[in-house]
Formats: sequence, structure tokens, C-alpha cells
Amino acid sequence: METIHLTASQQKEVERQLDLYMTGAQEVIPPEELRTKIAKSVATGMPLKIKLGLDPSAPDVHLGHTVVLNKLRQFQETGHIVQLLIGDFTGKIGDPTGKSTARKQLTDEEVQHNAKTYFEQFGKVLDKEKVELHYNSKWLKELNLEDVIELAGKITVARLMERDDFEERIAMQKPISLHEFFYPLMQGYDSVVLESDIELGGTDQHFNVLMGRHFQERYKKEKQVVILMPLLEGLDGVEKMSKSKHNYIGIDENPNDMYGKTMSLPDSLMKKYIHLATDLELEDKKRLVKDLETGALHPRDAKMFLGKTIVRMYHGEEAAEAAEQQFKRVFQQNSLPEDIATVHWKGDQTTPIIDLLVTLELLPSKSEARRMIQNGGVKINGEKAENIHADIQVLPQMTIQVGKRKFVRLTVSE
Amino acid sequence: METIHLTASQQKEVERQLDLYMTGAQEVIPPEELRTKIAKSVATGMPLKIKLGLDPSAPDVHLGHTVVLNKLRQFQETGHIVQLLIGDFTGKIGDPTGKSTARKQLTDEEVQHNAKTYFEQFGKVLDKEKVELHYNSKWLKELNLEDVIELAGKITVARLMERDDFEERIAMQKPISLHEFFYPLMQGYDSVVLESDIELGGTDQHFNVLMGRHFQERYKKEKQVVILMPLLEGLDGVEKMSKSKHNYIGIDENPNDMYGKTMSLPDSLMKKYIHLATDLELEDKKRLVKDLETGALHPRDAKMFLGKTIVRMYHGEEAAEAAEQQFKRVFQQNSLPEDIATVHWKGDQTTPIIDLLVTLELLPSKSEARRMIQNGGVKINGEKAENIHADIQVLPQMTIQVGKRKFVRLTVSE
Repeated sequence: METIHLTASQQKEVERQLDLYMTGAQEVIPPEELRTKIAKSVATGMPLKIKLGLDPSAPDVHLGHTVVLNKLRQFQETGHIVQLLIGDFTGKIGDPTGKSTARKQLTDEEVQHNAKTYFEQFGKVLDKEKVELHYNSKWLKELNLEDVIELAGKITVARLMERDDFEERIAMQKPISLHEFFYPLMQGYDSVVLESDIELGGTDQHFNVLMGRHFQERYKKEKQVVILMPLLEGLDGVEKMSKSKHNYIGIDENPNDMYGKTMSLPDSLMKKYIHLATDLELEDKKRLVKDLETGALHPRDAKMFLGKTIVRMYHGEEAAEAAEQQFKRVFQQNSLPEDIATVHWKGDQTTPIIDLLVTLELLPSKSEARRMIQNGGVKINGEKAENIHADIQVLPQMTIQVGKRKFVRLTVSE
Repeated sequence: METIHLTASQQKEVERQLDLYMTGAQEVIPPEELRTKIAKSVATGMPLKIKLGLDPSAPDVHLGHTVVLNKLRQFQETGHIVQLLIGDFTGKIGDPTGKSTARKQLTDEEVQHNAKTYFEQFGKVLDKEKVELHYNSKWLKELNLEDVIELAGKITVARLMERDDFEERIAMQKPISLHEFFYPLMQGYDSVVLESDIELGGTDQHFNVLMGRHFQERYKKEKQVVILMPLLEGLDGVEKMSKSKHNYIGIDENPNDMYGKTMSLPDSLMKKYIHLATDLELEDKKRLVKDLETGALHPRDAKMFLGKTIVRMYHGEEAAEAAEQQFKRVFQQNSLPEDIATVHWKGDQTTPIIDLLVTLELLPSKSEARRMIQNGGVKINGEKAENIHADIQVLPQMTIQVGKRKFVRLTVSE
């Protein structure tokens, strides 16, 4: 291993970056190589290349996705280069067995459209000027059978079987189609081509992201460091944030929804959201978390600051201020009593507003419910309901007000 | 399943072919499909396509290889088409891990040369006019990653693991490199491209040959029937005939060696050799075997007929006659006494002639042995030994004569 000579201030800069990148990460593999890479970059002035792979099939970006983006932004702020890798090759071939509906075949236009959407949405977190956009079809479509056999010769079947979902399916005697082995191979090969220094991923990407390290070594390149970020729980406080679970905060949502949803988060998630879902300076994050722990900061105040920060990140200062004012007006100053009954909602997650009001026994009949809405007497999360045909997405912490005195707050089953 | 209408004589022809092809085969998968294919061919006059895959790395052809060739010739005689498939793609890529010395990378020239050698040697058994020569690099080198993933999507990992040697290595925790899974895939894909009706192979090819059936079905083609031929034991009567075991009869050997080696076969192998290593008519084979079983034919006479037949196949009638005469002259009429001592040889399989004579105590010293050879007094299998530096390949049933009266016949340890 080569020795890198650093001045005292350079040494300090290495430690600063190391602390910055490691804070919030679930796992860094291996930390000593991360230090070496940073040291080399500080010594030579050469930026590091940080890869993030993206599946082009689902471009709806929510706060869960921003965990890695916020980490990437930290790298950008120090001058490193982000490599966004659109897995368009995989998207275009789909699932040859036709069994997985998740992996349906996309056209060139769909891939392009989705990539553009990603890039636009990511641009709200990342500095687009310091992003390289790569499409892996560029090199993967050039591989012929001989190349594929060379690639496959660099990994064993046993190693691939270690992936959790493969291991599980073998134990359950569920079939694994041979082509499924290629996805980790391709992800690894992408890192060989891109000569990435670091690859980011969620903890659920543990196996796939390590493939880059494996194949870079087998192709005699410098091995990338892997940074695994925790998965962010959604509004329910339990499940991973995802669109299909209806527990997400989308980065395209309007300021009031964004703020309101943030306020509905359980207190226990505050620390995690501060570290993973905001663009605050590391020392501000640390101070906030410490104040929460010591009780110097009330959880509700922390949550309001978090809500305002998140709205500011995606809609700007002014919108953040307005959302906070709106929240204060509706929820604090006027509408909500201090102690409000909590009702556990066991029905469908999406329910017609009329059914919701009657089932919750806030109104005695559907016709009464209809009339009350038409008279402007029903508020959902402080917003007047206007459409008697509306379907309501029932979210935890949602408040419903009927007339002046009836309030409920909902909790939702898993 | 479609119904095929046949006249009585066509029906008889179907049964004749079925009996012909099945006799001597170890396994036909499945026999009822073989009957259907023959019936279709008889009804329509369309020949069947019979595939044999060849590894281009080892072009030394011996009788062990001719087991499948003799079966192919039976198909040719009825008018069917033989597809010789040279696996040059595999030969050219070698083993990407570099671990297997058996699978070393061949140049285009080597592949061409080996294929030509095969074709010439095979021409001694097959009718070259009714052979199609195919090189699988033609289609395999055209496959790109997308095609490979499509192919791999048509088989499961579990199915591939069923191959005996994979299963064994998994049990022994020995690594399997992923590229090894491609060889059966390629062999199967060859059958898809060639639209083979039948594929021949040795019983050791059971798994690979079935791949053709598997992939033809998955690519919506008519499935090939698989005919597995038994492996032929060599001169020792126990091990599979192979060059490395020094127990083979090469089809390029001179008539006298060919005849003599055949005579050294254990009696127990007569039936098998008659069925698998000759071009006799099926009814003649059956009669010979029956006569051997009833004792109407002496094993030695059967063996002489077998020897003559084999020499005739590779060198013609005249050479066969001459080899028989030579054998009779040396071994029967003059040289060999009726009861000759048998000595078990425990030394190296290849031994300098001088050492052989002294170790067997046929001569008291190396100098005596040297002199006796120079005087023309030593015969190996009835042939005068002339070179005192010769290395002798010790084979079972080999006879050594020193002077007029000393004889030994050797048996050899496993």
C-alpha cells in the first residue's frame, strides 16, 4: 500500500470528510479504504467518482429515495463527482420469463422519459452540474457471448447463491431462473466500466453493490468502497417508505401536504429524518439531535423545524414559511382542541368520504354526511372537504372535524 | 398428437428402423417419440436430422468413438442426414478462469485442422456425402447479452445443478464458476438452431444431450429424441476406452496391430464389440451373438471374425485377409505352443524392452537381452523386435517369445 503524505490541515480535511460521509450511513465497506480514497483525493486534488444505480422503471421520487441523494450531495459539496447510472439495459430487456410484472419491458422512449424525470427530480437535491448521467446499455449491449462467458468466469455459483433472496428461494425450493444471476453481474460490470470509487445503495442493495467491488478486483481495477444507507420508514413509522404502502412523502407534493405529512410522523423517527432527509450542515444535525435527546427541544418544535426544512428543500424559503403559517393557523391557533379522541381505522386505506364519516359515527347517515359536506362543515386535516364523491386516503394522524365540536384523529392498522 | 396413417409395409419399415436404432443403445428418451419421428419420416419421405456434437480439442479417433459413428451410419443407410456439430466456439474461448488445462484456447487454424482430421477419420465409418458439417461459432458468436439473457431465462439454476459433476462439487464444496453453466446451454441452443430430430451421445453425455430437448421445447420447436450409447470398455476389459488409459484401438492403427489388439480382448466383451464396433447387418450381429451364447461358435473364432471385420472396416478386405493370415501364421500355425505361461506384469505400462526381458527373467542380464534382440531372437506379439532402445507398451495378452522355446503371455494390473 502506498503512503500518502499530508499536511496537518489536509489531515484535518480528511477527517472532516470521513465524519461527514460516515454519519448516517448504516455500513461502510471497508471504512479504512474510504479514508485512503479521501486522503488520495485531498493530496492530489482529484475528485472521487460516486456511483448511484437507478432502476428506470419507477421514477416517482419520495423522501425515501432522497436518503442516498442527500448523501451524494454531501460528496458534491466537497467537489466530488456523482455518477448516476440509469439501468436502461435491464429495463429494456424486461423479464424474459414474463413472470415478473415488476420487470416489464420498457421502450426506448419510456426509458428516456423516466431518466429525464429522475434527473429533474434529483435536481432538487443534487447539483446537476456535477452529475454525470450514464446509461448502461451503452456498454452492455456491446457484450457478446464470449464477453459474457469471460464475465461469468469471474464469479462462482456459490457466491451468487449467497444473495438473501436466492438463498431463501433455494430453501423454499422455489425456482431461480438462470437469467436472474445476470442482474448482479451487470451491476458489478457497470462499476468496472465507470471506474467508480464509491457506490451508494440502500441496505437492501448490500449484495448487488458489493458486486462492483468483486468485479473491479477481478478486472484488476481499484476496488470501490460501498456505502449502505439505512432505509427510511414512512408515515406509519414501521414500514419502509414506498408508494405501494401509501406511507410516503413525495418530493413533488405541494408544500402544505408535505408539511402536514411531516407533522404526522411519529416522534421516534425525528433523529433519523434529521440525519437522512435534510440538507442541514452536519454540526446543525448533531446539535438538533442532541437537544432532542436532552429535552432542550420539544419534539413538536423539532418536527415543525423538520417540516419547514423539507418544504424549503423542495419549494424554497417562502413556501416553507407559508406552509408553517398555514399549519399553525389551522392546527394550532384555532381548530384543534388540545385533547382529541384517537380512533383506530380498520377499513380500506382508500375510502369514499361519505362512508368514512358514517363508519366513524361522526354523522348518523349518508344523506346527513352529504349535507354536512355541502354546507362546508367537514374538514380533513384542517382543509374543508368540498366534493361529496371524494375518495379519502386514510393516513395515520389524519384529523377529521365535523361541525364545530366533533374531532377525531385516526390511527391506521398495518 | 397428430395421427399418421401408414400402409402395412410402411408400418413394417417403421418397426425395422426402430429395432435397428434401439439395438445396442443404452437409453432412448423417449422411445415413443422415436417411433413417431420415424413414422413421420416414412410417411412423408423426409429424412430425419441426427446430431452428434464434437469437441474440437482431441481428434484422435479410436473404436470407443466409433460406437456413436456406427449408430449414425445405420441412420445414413436408411437415408437420414447426419449433422456433425464441431463445438469450435467453445474451443476458441477456452476456459476463462485458466484453471482447466483440458479446455485450453485453440486458434482458428487448430480448430480447422482438428475438424478436418475428424472429418477424414469419420469418413471411414460415415458416408461423407450424407454428412452436414456445422460449426457452432457461426451462431454463438452472434449472440449478444440480450440473447444470452433470453436463453438463460429458459432454464433454472436448480435444473443445471442436477448435472452429476455439479452436484458432486456442490456436495464437496468445490467451486463452480458461473461460466461453466454455459456449456450445457450452448449445446442445447445448437439443437435449437439445427432443428435436430435426434441427438446421439455417450451415456456420460446424458445431461448435456437432454439440454437440446429442453431448449427446443422452450423455443417452441419439436423436441429432439435422445439416444445414449454405452461406453466401450478398452483392451483391459474394465476401463472406458481412452487414449490416456493406453487401452485403445485407434482407427488409424496398422492392420496387424488392430487385429492383434482385438484378439487380446477378453471374451466377455465380444457381444458388446459385435453390436457397437462393427458395421455388420443387424441380423448378422444377432446371429453371431446367439451362436456365441449357445456355444455354436467358439469365442476365439468369434474374436477372429471380429478382428477381421474391424480391419476390413478401416483398411479394406485385402488388408483384413492379410492380417488374419499373419495372425494365423505367427500365433497359431507355428510360433505359439498350446499352453503358454501367463505372467502378471506389475511394472510400468511403458518399459524399455531390455528391462522387460530381464525383469521377466527371460534373459539373465541386460547385455544378454541386448545380444538376443540384435540376433533377432526376441518377438513381441509374434513380431521380431529390432530396436534395443525400444520402449514397450505393455498390454494385456501380449506374448513375448525369446529364442525358440521361451514364451510368456502377460496380464496387466489395473
